[in-house]
Amino acid sequence: MARKILILNGPNLNLLGTREPGIYGVATLGDIEASCRKQGAGMDMQIDFRQSNHEGELVDWIQQAGQKRQGQQGAQSTQGAYDAIVINPAAYSHTSIAIRDALGAVDLPLIEVHISNIFQRESFRHHSHISAIASGVICGLGAFGYNLALDALNDILSPKKP
Amino acid sequence: MARKILILNGPNLNLLGTREPGIYGVATLGDIEASCRKQGAGMDMQIDFRQSNHEGELVDWIQQAGQKRQGQQGAQSTQGAYDAIVINPAAYSHTSIAIRDALGAVDLPLIEVHISNIFQRESFRHHSHISAIASGVICGLGAFGYNLALDALNDILSPKKP
Amino acid sequence: MARKILILNGPNLNLLGTREPGIYGVATLGDIEASCRKQGAGMDMQIDFRQSNHEGELVDWIQQAGQKRQGQQGAQSTQGAYDAIVINPAAYSHTSIAIRDALGAVDLPLIEVHISNIFQRESFRHHSHISAIASGVICGLGAFGYNLALDALNDILSPKKP
Amino acid sequence: MARKILILNGPNLNLLGTREPGIYGVATLGDIEASCRKQGAGMDMQIDFRQSNHEGELVDWIQQAGQKRQGQQGAQSTQGAYDAIVINPAAYSHTSIAIRDALGAVDLPLIEVHISNIFQRESFRHHSHISAIASGVICGLGAFGYNLALDALNDILSPKKP
Amino acid sequence: MARKILILNGPNLNLLGTREPGIYGVATLGDIEASCRKQGAGMDMQIDFRQSNHEGELVDWIQQAGQKRQGQQGAQSTQGAYDAIVINPAAYSHTSIAIRDALGAVDLPLIEVHISNIFQRESFRHHSHISAIASGVICGLGAFGYNLALDALNDILSPKKP
Amino acid sequence: MARKILILNGPNLNLLGTREPGIYGVATLGDIEASCRKQGAGMDMQIDFRQSNHEGELVDWIQQAGQKRQGQQGAQSTQGAYDAIVINPAAYSHTSIAIRDALGAVDLPLIEVHISNIFQRESFRHHSHISAIASGVICGLGAFGYNLALDALNDILSPKKP
Amino acid sequence: MARKILILNGPNLNLLGTREPGIYGVATLGDIEASCRKQGAGMDMQIDFRQSNHEGELVDWIQQAGQKRQGQQGAQSTQGAYDAIVINPAAYSHTSIAIRDALGAVDLPLIEVHISNIFQRESFRHHSHISAIASGVICGLGAFGYNLALDALNDILSPKKP
Amino acid sequence: MARKILILNGPNLNLLGTREPGIYGVATLGDIEASCRKQGAGMDMQIDFRQSNHEGELVDWIQQAGQKRQGQQGAQSTQGAYDAIVINPAAYSHTSIAIRDALGAVDLPLIEVHISNIFQRESFRHHSHISAIASGVICGLGAFGYNLALDALNDILSPKKP
Amino acid sequence: MARKILILNGPNLNLLGTREPGIYGVATLGDIEASCRKQGAGMDMQIDFRQSNHEGELVDWIQQAGQKRQGQQGAQSTQGAYDAIVINPAAYSHTSIAIRDALGAVDLPLIEVHISNIFQRESFRHHSHISAIASGVICGLGAFGYNLALDALNDILSPKKP
Amino acid sequence: MARKILILNGPNLNLLGTREPGIYGVATLGDIEASCRKQGAGMDMQIDFRQSNHEGELVDWIQQAGQKRQGQQGAQSTQGAYDAIVINPAAYSHTSIAIRDALGAVDLPLIEVHISNIFQRESFRHHSHISAIASGVICGLGAFGYNLALDALNDILSPKKP
Amino acid sequence: MARKILILNGPNLNLLGTREPGIYGVATLGDIEASCRKQGAGMDMQIDFRQSNHEGELVDWIQQAGQKRQGQQGAQSTQGAYDAIVINPAAYSHTSIAIRDALGAVDLPLIEVHISNIFQRESFRHHSHISAIASGVICGLGAFGYNLALDALNDILSPKKP
Amino acid sequence: MARKILILNGPNLNLLGTREPGIYGVATLGDIEASCRKQGAGMDMQIDFRQSNHEGELVDWIQQAGQKRQGQQGAQSTQGAYDAIVINPAAYSHTSIAIRDALGAVDLPLIEVHISNIFQRESFRHHSHISAIASGVICGLGAFGYNLALDALNDILSPKKP
Repeated sequence: MARKILILNGPNLNLLGTREPGIYGVATLGDIEASCRKQGAGMDMQIDFRQSNHEGELVDWIQQAGQKRQGQQGAQSTQGAYDAIVINPAAYSHTSIAIRDALGAVDLPLIEVHISNIFQRESFRHHSHISAIASGVICGLGAFGYNLALDALNDILSPKKP
Repeated sequence: MARKILILNGPNLNLLGTREPGIYGVATLGDIEASCRKQGAGMDMQIDFRQSNHEGELVDWIQQAGQKRQGQQGAQSTQGAYDAIVINPAAYSHTSIAIRDALGAVDLPLIEVHISNIFQRESFRHHSHISAIASGVICGLGAFGYNLALDALNDILSPKKP
Repeated sequence: MARKILILNGPNLNLLGTREPGIYGVATLGDIEASCRKQGAGMDMQIDFRQSNHEGELVDWIQQAGQKRQGQQGAQSTQGAYDAIVINPAAYSHTSIAIRDALGAVDLPLIEVHISNIFQRESFRHHSHISAIASGVICGLGAFGYNLALDALNDILSPKKP
Repeated sequence: MARKILILNGPNLNLLGTREPGIYGVATLGDIEASCRKQGAGMDMQIDFRQSNHEGELVDWIQQAGQKRQGQQGAQSTQGAYDAIVINPAAYSHTSIAIRDALGAVDLPLIEVHISNIFQRESFRHHSHISAIASGVICGLGAFGYNLALDALNDILSPKKP
Repeated sequence: MARKILILNGPNLNLLGTREPGIYGVATLGDIEASCRKQGAGMDMQIDFRQSNHEGELVDWIQQAGQKRQGQQGAQSTQGAYDAIVINPAAYSHTSIAIRDALGAVDLPLIEVHISNIFQRESFRHHSHISAIASGVICGLGAFGYNLALDALNDILSPKKP
Repeated sequence: MARKILILNGPNLNLLGTREPGIYGVATLGDIEASCRKQGAGMDMQIDFRQSNHEGELVDWIQQAGQKRQGQQGAQSTQGAYDAIVINPAAYSHTSIAIRDALGAVDLPLIEVHISNIFQRESFRHHSHISAIASGVICGLGAFGYNLALDALNDILSPKKP
Repeated sequence: MARKILILNGPNLNLLGTREPGIYGVATLGDIEASCRKQGAGMDMQIDFRQSNHEGELVDWIQQAGQKRQGQQGAQSTQGAYDAIVINPAAYSHTSIAIRDALGAVDLPLIEVHISNIFQRESFRHHSHISAIASGVICGLGAFGYNLALDALNDILSPKKP
Repeated sequence: MARKILILNGPNLNLLGTREPGIYGVATLGDIEASCRKQGAGMDMQIDFRQSNHEGELVDWIQQAGQKRQGQQGAQSTQGAYDAIVINPAAYSHTSIAIRDALGAVDLPLIEVHISNIFQRESFRHHSHISAIASGVICGLGAFGYNLALDALNDILSPKKP
Repeated sequence: MARKILILNGPNLNLLGTREPGIYGVATLGDIEASCRKQGAGMDMQIDFRQSNHEGELVDWIQQAGQKRQGQQGAQSTQGAYDAIVINPAAYSHTSIAIRDALGAVDLPLIEVHISNIFQRESFRHHSHISAIASGVICGLGAFGYNLALDALNDILSPKKP
Repeated sequence: MARKILILNGPNLNLLGTREPGIYGVATLGDIEASCRKQGAGMDMQIDFRQSNHEGELVDWIQQAGQKRQGQQGAQSTQGAYDAIVINPAAYSHTSIAIRDALGAVDLPLIEVHISNIFQRESFRHHSHISAIASGVICGLGAFGYNLALDALNDILSPKKP
Repeated sequence: MARKILILNGPNLNLLGTREPGIYGVATLGDIEASCRKQGAGMDMQIDFRQSNHEGELVDWIQQAGQKRQGQQGAQSTQGAYDAIVINPAAYSHTSIAIRDALGAVDLPLIEVHISNIFQRESFRHHSHISAIASGVICGLGAFGYNLALDALNDILSPKKP
Repeated sequence: MARKILILNGPNLNLLGTREPGIYGVATLGDIEASCRKQGAGMDMQIDFRQSNHEGELVDWIQQAGQKRQGQQGAQSTQGAYDAIVINPAAYSHTSIAIRDALGAVDLPLIEVHISNIFQRESFRHHSHISAIASGVICGLGAFGYNLALDALNDILSPKKP
């Protein structure tokens, strides 16, 4: 059965491609979604790709990713929920403990992605509340960072050979 | 007439009891609400119990708590509004000046509750923007902290004997 | 054609005039809006005046201000969008990088207004994430600060004589 | 058998009620002791209530609270010692690691109480060495905070229903 | 009777217009003075416009602004002194407590003006000793900031309608 | 009636004159006491001169200085207590909030004396918890600083001529 | 022609797989080298894989990566040098400005890899001198991070379709 | 022969008595000068009392205090110069290293006086560049502090009995 | 004649062996005293071994160690006092300047011992006020650290061969 | 035509040679001026050598150095002004942003000289506001540092050979 | 079988005895080695004593200490490797995380020795990266500290009596 | 006899002239060596010019510079060793205490040179461990700084005229 991956995008990422291409590149968020879907299709991954400018909405979505899917007779089923999360928290990386707590509570494999290299930018962007609870962090590699994140999740979610 | 108490719960507290019981205990938010309602019933307190993951929604609710209730002929009545607030701001304790300002503007008796002992956790949880404007702070005493908060409000709202 | 100005007000500013008049004065937000509309009418400015307690909603509105208006045949028209922004970010001045990033992406003339003198208040109000990307900052001059902001925008948007 | 509770009060708390009532209220330490004894009587708690201006004496008392009571034949008895501690460390909250270490060694349920809201006062009062090793902290709720502390201990010491 | 406004300019502002126009614009200090005089003439304001590179001279001038004007018989007259101060302290914003103290002692309506946006420049320019004692601060709006300051003073000095 | 002055000396000051005369001079604490008594005799001051190495004992003594003296019939008399305090807190200057709180509660005219110039020594000696609640501070002037402190108290306690 | 990639490993990475597998996993450095070579073979990449405990040796190697390869007649040839660098600087991430300067001088596409998530470890490991000059950073994804780095370089070095 | 004492007063002290009497008292600088002269007359001290708002002028005066007085034949005479300095540096306490260096170069007995208790005021007034090179510091004792300073100098300058 | 060594133990060390053996080991303070006495007997050292929870009592004891012993006729004898001090200041390491000053005044060879490795514990235990005035510091080596301290003193107190 | 060099000396440098020769050497400022003039004569440099204790005067002089010299017909001539500045800002290095701004506005080749090695002195002398806008800094090499500065300017001002 | 102890000495320790004997004493590193060998001979310890100025070489040596010794048939033997490490990291104490990581990976009993008391020296010498992973730290006791370290290892490596 | 000067160059300086000429100029290290040799020849200085990327190798070289040269019969000769050191520590300025200690031990006249103005670059380059032990520092004056350093050494090493 396909693994379900939730890809979350934080504030202002809906402007990607049309604003500040010098920092963020020319790919739009739609381009990135398409690329992820295509890649996911080849790795038996079902991609749920969302963006919000609202911290609370991101928290809501993260919580839903952690909920057990219900089977047909209302009993808790093996079908369901998400298997992993990719998040580009954008500005909320630096200010949101609420998102951190939601991700910590959900406790799924988690990759944090930043399109730009946050360590080359203003000092207030160097610290992310999310990194300490992520499985891994990928930054500075542009839209391709999302693809790497899916590759990484594929590696994490795949059964290891003894 | 019953005193009206607004009990507000911040982000991720809807997950209580099912997630990280080692830190937060096994009581669900529903259990806490029931316990508060039961206790309030015995102290002539009407409990309004809410939770939100959205900073702005919490600000909206706090503002409403400060609004004067309207009497029947549209004139400002003595009936109305809330008499006090209990808040467990969770992650927003540490990041939300907006909630602090709303609480400061409303200027009602205010008890800040934390289920876990925030001083035993990561250093970024040691500081709360809310504490300096609260009447009092109760932390580390689990779900029972809500009951203590209602007791404290009962003490504050009761006419003192000369 | 009239210039379109978006005036944004952050959390708790809807309480203006009724709360803490010692700090914020007696003018309500409605009074300020009326004053701005009247002033704008005399300077060929169309005023869009809004308030929200929600960080994400403010981000949404800022993004819309940056969108190109569409002409009749669907082609990008010269008609449209906003020509400048005035923002009183209130508590979000000190905590919201998301609003900063939205304003940075929109890249319109921007005046930051504070009704009170933030440098006379608690130290956590001395730093604003917005100031470094604003065209200018006006603080401590009460409701009249909005009028000065419109004057400043009138100066910025007017063609300079050679 | 009655549970034994040690209530410790740090420096200058013997002045309560007669000094700075604006901050600390009008209750004297004797009033508080009487209130605690009365409350304890109703909860099968035996209250030992003490005050000292001497850091070392407080350390001595805490250590004694942790000592096993001796039975009649000199053998270690099940009778004895204290079941929990309430401490208002006053000024020593902020400067005494010795008291912290004594409390840490004794390892009994521990409630830290502050009559005033320390977060509203000078910044050097915002940090307490004790909080990180307390079960819970109650502050800003006046003399009533001691009563809440006893309630909290009653909750902690009572066998939980399955 | 015309209101008397003292406009003070700190070190290196005599170089305005000829040096670093990218930061400070092309208006010379003479241009600004002319603009202020013209504006003042229309608002019943008498402008006294000065510049000094000397901290002590600025202190002297500020003190004089606070002295009561003497009437004809040597008695203290109602005629006299200044009604308000506009200051662009330039580099002394960041280093002069002496100017701050002089302004504090004089205790007149005070507007601090910065031509450039100090929050976009080196971090040592982000803090001004003057701001905390000013009525208001206007920065980043170029030479026009002086005009806004006079408008603000006009608002402050004008009798408010009941 | 003679004014009663309590002169308190903190830890290690009993070693004065015999230890580290390069920093503290050759006068012994006995010499200083004799000098203060002699000076007090000429100014109608009764000197109570004490030294302790124990923080708690200093707190006890300070509290006693604030107690109202009892008249003959047990009624509170005008006779009694102390009129002012001189304290050389020595090492406790830098570490004791308990002494600070005791002095704050007693609320008598208070002169803090340091024999050596604490600003010329290790950086941890530059800050005194006591200074912010003292009437005045005298430091670096050797044993003579005690005499200056008594002169200062004489000035403070003497009725001012209109 | 195959692209040449220099993969550098800092101090103690030669111990990989045999030491602290809880943090670093069970793969040895030899396993990682083999995996990279295999992956490189499929992407037309020639892998040069090295490890050193010596800061100076790493600087030497980085400088060589920047040298132009010499053609047959001694003239500078198009053949030669390296096309990109992957570096896991290990402990030198946090202490070596010399390595940073070497990498900055060479100015090739650069991916910084950390096997463990440095943001979950001691605070002195949270800052890397290298990150600010890297094209991108990948951390916390185990030995697979090297493979992701090669994928990223493949993306960076491949001609983009118009 | 009379000892010559230079008493220097920093910026804004010429306003004493008329401005902010709540902080600085009602004595004018003229009153203080008269009091010092009278006291000096009784102790064989010749008082030179000056005030300036100019840092450079204070430096000039301090340097002159250190110059050797010239005898009649141009040879360096024993007559001359000053024997000690009292300085109330006011705002320059906190900002002037130039005054510190001048005082350090002159190397005369030096008493630093502050009329108000600088440790009770804004934190930027807690540090004085002068204190570390003064013989002693007297603060918070009002205009009387100058008299204490002269007493202290009398003690320092008087030959000690063996 | 035997050398006299004062071994001082700070607060809570009387609990050694029975509390937190994971950190402090199973040896009791009595065991350590016995071990030191036995070792001292073999090195011509007379051991005076004490413990106190009171900062002031430790200061008193240290001062006594510095006092000259009196001979039979009351004259100062060569017999007497202590030759060196070993101190385990426990919690007072981090908070007591009074103990530091007493040790500094006594000026005897001084070894600071910590049973646990303070650098592996909470950050507030990393700094000791005592270390900078000790001859040497031994930490983390358990009860055996006392024996090493006596060995070190034996080395220090023994006449060196030329 | 000779190049004109302005050499500026900050506060207290007029005391050179007579005060603190251990730090500053025995050369007087007159000696240094003579040495610079002699050296300048051999390098076609006209030396203008000044000293002031007044920050504002130094700012005035720096501004004049930047003014264009006027030719005979009032037109701006190629004759004139200064070609470079050497400054020993002394105490103002650490406190004057006004001097920094003046030097920044003038934008001439600038060498900062310190006679002593400021990095060996008090920590408040380690930072100079001037260094970041100087062409170069020379410190610790005594009076000879001025000669090195002129050599450096000779190198900077000389046409480079292709 | 003799226990093998690796004693490592960091940069500049080869200069011991000939340089700065005031700080480091007159013993040469050869003297210390001889003393350790002699002491080791009496405690069944085989001493391997080395010094290097190269961080990387120290890392190499530490890694070798952790390698299992090989028996005769190439199989891993019980013979071999080292049983413990003594390290005087000198300057690398304060700057080398690489050495820390090597020591952490090797995980043998480890004593850190400093000849001088690092807490009496410049503040940058107060922190050692090594201390937090050492078994114990001995500092300030001169060359004898090495002997104490061997005693400590003898205690650690000896089987404890039950 | 010619004076021997050791000129040391730290990491990456071998790349000079070919890399980042905007910061470091076009002169190669070979050019600088040639220039120094030529200048030395004219001042009776024998130049030993070296570069290393290895911290330990630089320490080794510095130590050798301090060794006494041996005469022919093995006796310590007056011939030999170096008379002074010039060092451009490059990146090791900011990170190497080992180099600082070696230079401190050697105790020869020492000039620190930086080609670029380190105070105009990243903040981590503003502090040099070497400066506090150098005779003097020259920075920002390009390759010519080496020549100035030799001039400075010539001045330091030359006998001063009485």
